[in-house]
Amino acid sequence: MKQHALGIDYGTNSCRSLLIDLENGTEIGSTVFNYPSGEMGVLLDPKNPHVARQNPQDYLDGFVAITRGALEQAAAKIPGFDPAQVVGIGIDTTGSTPIPVNQEGTPLGLLPEFKNNLNAMVWLWKDHTGYAEAAEITQLAREIRPDILAKCGGIYSSEWFWSKILRLRRTDPAVFEAAYSFVEHCDWLPAVLTGNTNPLTLQRSVCAAGHKAMFSTEWGGLPDKEFLSKLDPALADLRDRLYEEAHTSDVKAGSLCAEWATKLGLPEGIAISVGAFDAHMGAVGAGIKEGTLVKILGTSTCDLMITPANQPLADIPGVCGIVNGSVLPGYYGIEAGQSAVGDLFLWLVKNLVPESYGSTIGDKFSAMEKAMSAQKPGASGLLALDWNNGNRTVLVDVRLTGLLLGQTLHTEAHEIYRAYIEATAFGALTIIRRVEEYGVEVREIINTGGLSIKNATLMQCYADIIGKPMKVSQSEQTCALGAAIFGAAAAGIADIGTLQNRVTATREKVYYPIPENQAVYAELYALYHTLHDAFGTAHWNGNLAHVMKKLLEIRSRQS
Amino acid sequence: MKQHALGIDYGTNSCRSLLIDLENGTEIGSTVFNYPSGEMGVLLDPKNPHVARQNPQDYLDGFVAITRGALEQAAAKIPGFDPAQVVGIGIDTTGSTPIPVNQEGTPLGLLPEFKNNLNAMVWLWKDHTGYAEAAEITQLAREIRPDILAKCGGIYSSEWFWSKILRLRRTDPAVFEAAYSFVEHCDWLPAVLTGNTNPLTLQRSVCAAGHKAMFSTEWGGLPDKEFLSKLDPALADLRDRLYEEAHTSDVKAGSLCAEWATKLGLPEGIAISVGAFDAHMGAVGAGIKEGTLVKILGTSTCDLMITPANQPLADIPGVCGIVNGSVLPGYYGIEAGQSAVGDLFLWLVKNLVPESYGSTIGDKFSAMEKAMSAQKPGASGLLALDWNNGNRTVLVDVRLTGLLLGQTLHTEAHEIYRAYIEATAFGALTIIRRVEEYGVEVREIINTGGLSIKNATLMQCYADIIGKPMKVSQSEQTCALGAAIFGAAAAGIADIGTLQNRVTATREKVYYPIPENQAVYAELYALYHTLHDAFGTAHWNGNLAHVMKKLLEIRSRQS
Repeated sequence: MKQHALGIDYGTNSCRSLLIDLENGTEIGSTVFNYPSGEMGVLLDPKNPHVARQNPQDYLDGFVAITRGALEQAAAKIPGFDPAQVVGIGIDTTGSTPIPVNQEGTPLGLLPEFKNNLNAMVWLWKDHTGYAEAAEITQLAREIRPDILAKCGGIYSSEWFWSKILRLRRTDPAVFEAAYSFVEHCDWLPAVLTGNTNPLTLQRSVCAAGHKAMFSTEWGGLPDKEFLSKLDPALADLRDRLYEEAHTSDVKAGSLCAEWATKLGLPEGIAISVGAFDAHMGAVGAGIKEGTLVKILGTSTCDLMITPANQPLADIPGVCGIVNGSVLPGYYGIEAGQSAVGDLFLWLVKNLVPESYGSTIGDKFSAMEKAMSAQKPGASGLLALDWNNGNRTVLVDVRLTGLLLGQTLHTEAHEIYRAYIEATAFGALTIIRRVEEYGVEVREIINTGGLSIKNATLMQCYADIIGKPMKVSQSEQTCALGAAIFGAAAAGIADIGTLQNRVTATREKVYYPIPENQAVYAELYALYHTLHDAFGTAHWNGNLAHVMKKLLEIRSRQS
Repeated sequence: MKQHALGIDYGTNSCRSLLIDLENGTEIGSTVFNYPSGEMGVLLDPKNPHVARQNPQDYLDGFVAITRGALEQAAAKIPGFDPAQVVGIGIDTTGSTPIPVNQEGTPLGLLPEFKNNLNAMVWLWKDHTGYAEAAEITQLAREIRPDILAKCGGIYSSEWFWSKILRLRRTDPAVFEAAYSFVEHCDWLPAVLTGNTNPLTLQRSVCAAGHKAMFSTEWGGLPDKEFLSKLDPALADLRDRLYEEAHTSDVKAGSLCAEWATKLGLPEGIAISVGAFDAHMGAVGAGIKEGTLVKILGTSTCDLMITPANQPLADIPGVCGIVNGSVLPGYYGIEAGQSAVGDLFLWLVKNLVPESYGSTIGDKFSAMEKAMSAQKPGASGLLALDWNNGNRTVLVDVRLTGLLLGQTLHTEAHEIYRAYIEATAFGALTIIRRVEEYGVEVREIINTGGLSIKNATLMQCYADIIGKPMKVSQSEQTCALGAAIFGAAAAGIADIGTLQNRVTATREKVYYPIPENQAVYAELYALYHTLHDAFGTAHWNGNLAHVMKKLLEIRSRQS
C-alpha cells in the first residue's frame, strides 16, 4: 500500500503544505495560505520599526486550509488516493518565535482581554525590540557564563527567546504576569494537533531550545536560575514553568487527536513529530549530510551544516549556534545566516529602480539581470556591504546598516543590484571561511529557496565568489519536504538517512566557478573584507565602528 | 543717453547673452544657444569616459545667435533702444578649456584635416584624460617647484592646462606638432571679436593663466623652461609660443572689429574686455567684496573669495588657486569648488528614483522635496560622501567615488536625495573651514546659480549645516552680469566697485540657520569628516584610502 507523509511549513508571511509519496518523493499536493492579519501576516507598530508580531489564529486557520487543500489536490491527481495513507505529519516554523501562553497553553493573544495588545501576540523571529536586552544578556553571559555564550557564537541576539521574554518583562509586566509560560511556535502547533498544549508536558524542540534559548544537556538544560535571576528574578521563576528536556524531530510528539483529525480530514492517531525550525528541516529536505553546506536563500538566508556529535567541535565565534540534534539526531547542527538577501534586492527594486527598467517588479528584475549580464565582475567599480538589516553571521549585530561605495555620475540601478548580489555572496564566503577556519570542511554546497531556482545570475556569482560548485535542491519546498520526512520518521517508516535517499535530490544544472571571474572577485573580496572589519568590528585600527552606531542613535532621537 | 553693456557667458552645454542697462542693472535682453555638436554640446568618446571635448564652431555660431537675440529683445521691449548704446562686451567661459590653434590662431578643429579628430577639438574643463599627467606634474612640482605648487593648493589637477597639453603631447603627437600654440576659450573669443587671433599678441586672461597654467609674476610668468622640459622638452619649446603677460578683465582686450561688428549688429570699435572664467565673473555679478564668499551652485559649484593683494595671504592647501587679479584687480582671487552638486542630484533622479515619485524629472524632484521636508535632520540615518565626480576642494582628487552609508530595508529615495544635499553642504563647510583656518574670514555668503533660486530645502540645509545666513543673488545670470560689468569697465564707464553697486543685489529672502538643526548637523558633520578623512586621505590611521583607488583600477581593467 502507498504511504504518504505531510509536511507543514510556517513562513513569515504564509504557511504551506506538502504531501509526498514516501517511495520516491513525488509531490502530490501542496497549498499555500497567506496569513490574513497585519501587513502580509506581520503585526507592525508604526511607532517602532523593531516590532514584528503575529496573530496565533492565523496559524490555526492556515493549518486546516493547507492540509485540506493538499488532500484535495492529491485526491484529484492520484487515482485511489486515500487520506488513510498519510502516516505522519511534520511541522516546521520560523523562530525564535515565542508565544506567551496561559496555564492551558492557550496563546494570550487568543484571549479577548489581550486581543488588542501587540505584546500578547506571537513575537516573530524578526522582532528586534529586545536589542538592548540582548546586549545585556550577552554582557552578563560574557562575565559569568562564557561557556554558554560560546555555543551561541559569542553574542546573544535580539531575535532570540530570552531577549524577547526579558523585553516583555521590562516593557509590559501585565502581559508577562499573565503568561504562565512561553512556547515556541514550532512546539505549539504539534502540541495543538496532539490535543495536549499543557506547557509543562508538551514536547519541546531541541532545535528551538538549543539555538535560541541557550538550552543544552551539557549544563543541565536551560540557563541556571542564578544567571537568569541576575537578568530578572522573574525569569528564574519562569524557568520552572518552561522545560527540562527537548527532543530531536524524529521523536514523536504525540498522535493526532480526534478533534484535529476531524478538522483536517486525516486519520486519528497518526504520528506527529516534534517540530523544528524551517531552515533545519529544510536542510534535511535538501539532502544535508556531513560535509554538505545547505544554503536556504530567501528574504534572509540560513546556512546549515552538521558534524558528528561524538567528535569534538570547537566553538565557532559569530556562528548563530551549535546544537546537538538540531538538524539530525546524532549530529551537531551548525547554524549561520545572513539577515537580508532577497529582502535586500526587493528593497532595491521597490525603492530605487526607475520605470526605465519596466513597470512591474518582475519586469524590473528581468531588465536589470539582462543589463548586468553584459558586464564583467568589477566593471561597475561598486562595492557594497549587505547590512541593510544588520549582520547575523559573523558579526551578530543588528545595529549595523548598509553601505554602497564607488558610485559615479554614470552608475545605474542594475549595477547596484549586481553589487548587492555580490555583497551577499561576499557575506556568504565570510561565513564559509569562518566555519572552515574552525575545522568544519565544506565539501558540497546545496542551495535551496526561490532565489536558487529563479536567479541564475546570482547562483553564478555565488559560484565565482565562493569558489565552489553551486548545486540546487530539486524540490521547491525543501522545508516542507524535510518536515514530511520527519513526520514519516516519527511514524517509524524508516530512518532519516534512508528517507532522504528516497525523497531528496539536486538538479542537473550545477553552477561551476569561472576562473577569470574568481580572480577578480578575490581582489574585490579583499576590499569587502576591509570594509567589513572597518565598520563592523570595534578592534579595527581605524575606529569607524562608531559611525553606523552613532547614525542610528541620532536617527532614533530625530524620528 | 542710455548706456548698455553686453555680457556673454559660455557654459558647458550652452551659451547665453545678457544685455543690461548700466544705470540700474535692468536686464533688457537675454538669449540662450544650445551647442549643436555632440551630446548636449560635449564631444564624447564611448571608449573613454574621461574624454570631454567641444567644437569651436559652436562658439562662433552661438555668439552671433545670442547677441542678435538679445538686441532684438531689447529693441522689442525698450522704446528708443539703439544698439549704438552698447558700450562694451565682456566674455566669460568655462576653464581650463584650452584650444590647440595654428599660427594664425585658428583652432585646429576648424581645419578640414582635423575635423574628425577629438584631440584637435577644444579640451573642455571636465576632460579628465590627463589624470596621470596631472599626478606627474604634481610630483615634479613637489620635488623641484614647491612654491609654485603651493599656489595651486598643493595638487595640480587633471582639469588644468598643462595636464591636458602634456596628455595631448603623449597620446597624439601629430596634433601637438600641428598646434602652434594653445589659447584658452576665454582668451580666444575676445581675440576673435577684436580681429586679432595671433597667439603671440592676443590678450590673455590672468584668471585662466593664474588658476590653471601656473602663471604668476612672482616667478616670471609661466613655469620656467627647466621645469617644463623635465616634463617634456616640447613643453619648454611651447613656452615661447604662449605668453609673458596676462591681464585682469577690466583691461580692454581690443575694439570690436568691422567684420564682427557687422555680424553682430553692433557698433565697430566698442570695447572688448579681457575674458575670464564664468565663476570669477559670476562672483563679480553676485556682488563679491572682501569677506564675501560667493557660491555658484550649478552642476558643480565654484566658491570664490577675494583678499587685498597688498596684504600677505598664506597658501591654503587643497584650494584650487590663489591668483592676483583673477576676480578683481588689486585683490587675490581665491577659488575652491565641489565637483558634483546639481549633477549629483540629477544622477540620482535619473537613475534611482522610481515612478512612484512622478513621471518626469521635475515631478520626481518636487515629490522628493515634499516628502523629505517632513523629516528632521538625521531621521533617515543616512550619511553620504559627495564624491561621485571626485573631490575638487580640499582633496583635489578626481579618483574618488561616492559613498552612501546607513541604508536599511526601509530607506526611500527622497531620504537619499536629502543625504546627498547634506553631503554637498558638508563638503561646502569643509571648504569654508579650510579657508578660515588659513585666515580668510567668511563674513557673508551669497549664493547664485539655479539651485540657489529653485531649491529652498537645499538653501535651508546649507544654512543649518554651514551655520551662517544664506543670501541669494538677485540676478539669475550673475556670470553674464559680471561679464557685462567688465565690458563696461573696459569701456571706461566706471570702476568695478561703482558698477557693482549700481547693477548687483541680493534677494529679500535670506535663509537663517535653525539652532536645533545646527546641533544635529554638527554631530553628523563629525561623522562626515571621519569618513572624508578615512577614504580621502592617505595619512588617516585606518588606511582605507586604497579602497576607492583599487576599485577604479579593477574597473578600468574589467570594462
